[in-house]
Amino acid sequence: MARDDIRVEAIHRALDDAGLDALICALPNNVLLLSGYWPVIGTSLAIATREGRVVLIAPDDEVEMAGRALADEVRRYQPAPLEEIKQAADALWLPLREAAVDLSIEKGRIGYERGPVSVPGSYVSMYLHGASIVDLLRRSLPETRLRPADDLLANLRARPTPGEVGRIRVACRMAENAFGEGTRRLREGMKEYEAAALFRAPLMMVDPRSGVQRADGFVSVMSGANSAEAYKAYARSRDRELEPGDFVMVHCNSYADGYWTDITRTFVLDEAGPRKLEMYGAVHAALRAAMEVIRPGAMAADVDAAAREALVSRGFGDQFKHATGHGVGFAAIDHNALPRLRPASEDRLEVGMVFNVEPAIYVEGYGGLRHCDMAMVTESGVEILTPFQSNIEHLVVRSSVGDEALSDEAAARPAAMV
Amino acid sequence: MARDDIRVEAIHRALDDAGLDALICALPNNVLLLSGYWPVIGTSLAIATREGRVVLIAPDDEVEMAGRALADEVRRYQPAPLEEIKQAADALWLPLREAAVDLSIEKGRIGYERGPVSVPGSYVSMYLHGASIVDLLRRSLPETRLRPADDLLANLRARPTPGEVGRIRVACRMAENAFGEGTRRLREGMKEYEAAALFRAPLMMVDPRSGVQRADGFVSVMSGANSAEAYKAYARSRDRELEPGDFVMVHCNSYADGYWTDITRTFVLDEAGPRKLEMYGAVHAALRAAMEVIRPGAMAADVDAAAREALVSRGFGDQFKHATGHGVGFAAIDHNALPRLRPASEDRLEVGMVFNVEPAIYVEGYGGLRHCDMAMVTESGVEILTPFQSNIEHLVVRSSVGDEALSDEAAARPAAMV
Repeated sequence: MARDDIRVEAIHRALDDAGLDALICALPNNVLLLSGYWPVIGTSLAIATREGRVVLIAPDDEVEMAGRALADEVRRYQPAPLEEIKQAADALWLPLREAAVDLSIEKGRIGYERGPVSVPGSYVSMYLHGASIVDLLRRSLPETRLRPADDLLANLRARPTPGEVGRIRVACRMAENAFGEGTRRLREGMKEYEAAALFRAPLMMVDPRSGVQRADGFVSVMSGANSAEAYKAYARSRDRELEPGDFVMVHCNSYADGYWTDITRTFVLDEAGPRKLEMYGAVHAALRAAMEVIRPGAMAADVDAAAREALVSRGFGDQFKHATGHGVGFAAIDHNALPRLRPASEDRLEVGMVFNVEPAIYVEGYGGLRHCDMAMVTESGVEILTPFQSNIEHLVVRSSVGDEALSDEAAARPAAMV
Repeated sequence: MARDDIRVEAIHRALDDAGLDALICALPNNVLLLSGYWPVIGTSLAIATREGRVVLIAPDDEVEMAGRALADEVRRYQPAPLEEIKQAADALWLPLREAAVDLSIEKGRIGYERGPVSVPGSYVSMYLHGASIVDLLRRSLPETRLRPADDLLANLRARPTPGEVGRIRVACRMAENAFGEGTRRLREGMKEYEAAALFRAPLMMVDPRSGVQRADGFVSVMSGANSAEAYKAYARSRDRELEPGDFVMVHCNSYADGYWTDITRTFVLDEAGPRKLEMYGAVHAALRAAMEVIRPGAMAADVDAAAREALVSRGFGDQFKHATGHGVGFAAIDHNALPRLRPASEDRLEVGMVFNVEPAIYVEGYGGLRHCDMAMVTESGVEILTPFQSNIEHLVVRSSVGDEALSDEAAARPAAMV
């Protein structure tokens, strides 16, 4: 079974520093972090020890997919046979105890998920231990000492390994493909949710050779005056029809086997006009200013300040209503995911960190423009993981229904594979 | 502000029986249960008292949507201004304390969510208190006595009020529309995930007059031999191409403002053939047998037995590998949601309960056939909430790409509104 030695070593060092013998996690993004497997319905557990051992305990139904986990061992259990009624936790406690004994941590100091935390959804429904995770751990491992490990886990999630970044890149390419497909099909007269469906459908298209088992995502389209509300903590598509001259903001979170992206492009239909062009100029300048600051050792707050100053100097300071970015990968939308690119942040950038950079201008009643890229800190500065549709030429989209040549081409063209 | 008096009375009785003064919930499906509002990112709290008061505490960004909650009062708070870095819980504790004092429950017995539980996802990322819900409650309300209220909440969720059933009906109609649209566009040669996208796209189409603010859902398509694996605890669409004669199983969970459905139809492309027709006959017979048992006072296990016996008598007993159904509405996929239609269940059906009925046959290497309807117990028996595509004539779908008339009609036809 494969291992990610860099991840194992990072866990070893973190546990050593914290004086812990092992981590036991159930939340899907943390199980992914420890074991390389992203549970579907939340009934798996991952154990990672200071000694570098990783054991994944997965339900029968997921063992086939979990078989590709980067763990030393995958143990299976049956959550509930048809003849019995019980919760997964009732079936988990004994396999957990046995694994802990085999790993010699049954009397150790165990880091666990106390919360709160923001977790990307892994399936339509998620099995959550909630506060009962404490009951499960005490029942299985009565002689251990339990320690909240939320900060330790957040720090590990903030530093993806090269292997993990490779999966984030796949999710970025899937999104690039979806943005291309969606843009070709964008037309005036569509409703926001119809446009969202166009951009979302290609997110499931994965080349089987990529090794990705599960790929999908969420897309929201906010247009016209609705786009001015996109600074809020959530996005949604409504039944507003797209009109020529509209801002059409497309917000996308795609995933590949649990590794997420956070990407936004704002298009304008047919013609931008001087006011919108000025807004594009300001947002793109803010993006460039932020990227210029990104390098190993830079303060995340300074990246935020650079983007913010670019907007302030162009008269849009009050219309940039949120942070410049946050960690992405194990997180999708989580404003507290490290590193936090915002004024009050004391986070320092390190090589390999992945986050979004999302300068924006929201003019109430008129429209909003956000450009959100995925970025990674490199030895020499920054690599933009989403280098597409980055110029005004790509963002002004011909959308007239009368343009038959364009319509035919769009209708006939098969969706491209990633 | 509107109230659902039947819900308030049900909460009153449940708290009275349990000797509790109030419930405080944060999980989105429970906040919906108590307040009528389905939080987006999980940073809301709902308080419901034995005296019949309901207070919703919602973040600034969601107050506009939360304004339509069926609560006595919506209080707003700001999770984290740009100048500060804190978790929502750090901003919630004081508003929670103030609300509790105003409701005179600050020294009372409080029911809370201990877990474990299966929760439908409300957004791309969910804010979860996890085990720290205990810390929040103790910090806000140090003089209360905390009691796990999971069973009480599960019992309340199992008995939707007529108003809540009305919202479940909207979600069912959305799904009906989506199944109709998807079926018209289904073609041989499509990949499973392309077919899934066709069925999923219309789930967001809501008539603004319905009052629904957020509608969407999940669709998985499993075809050919893949459909034989659909008994597992999760569904997924892959890159297999649909072929004439294939089973095409379409699993759908749609929602309208937090009220969910669980629906499956299995189509066969072009021609069923005798073996598949026999399987359809058995599954439809099992469905009828189950529906005939459903009435107030019936045992849920007897509904399961009726469906199971119909399949056993036709030689498919071993191929029906899961329970006949489970509660749906506040739950999407949750095999422990009440009532549990399975052999070991001691649940008794009551008027107004809503659940799915999903007899199925899974033949390894060949294919799987499941028909899953939403059903509600009525005074006189049962009402099927998803009375569409119920006969073999609707399930054998012409899919040939050479059928130009059908293709043109499908391509030209605008998607219908719910």
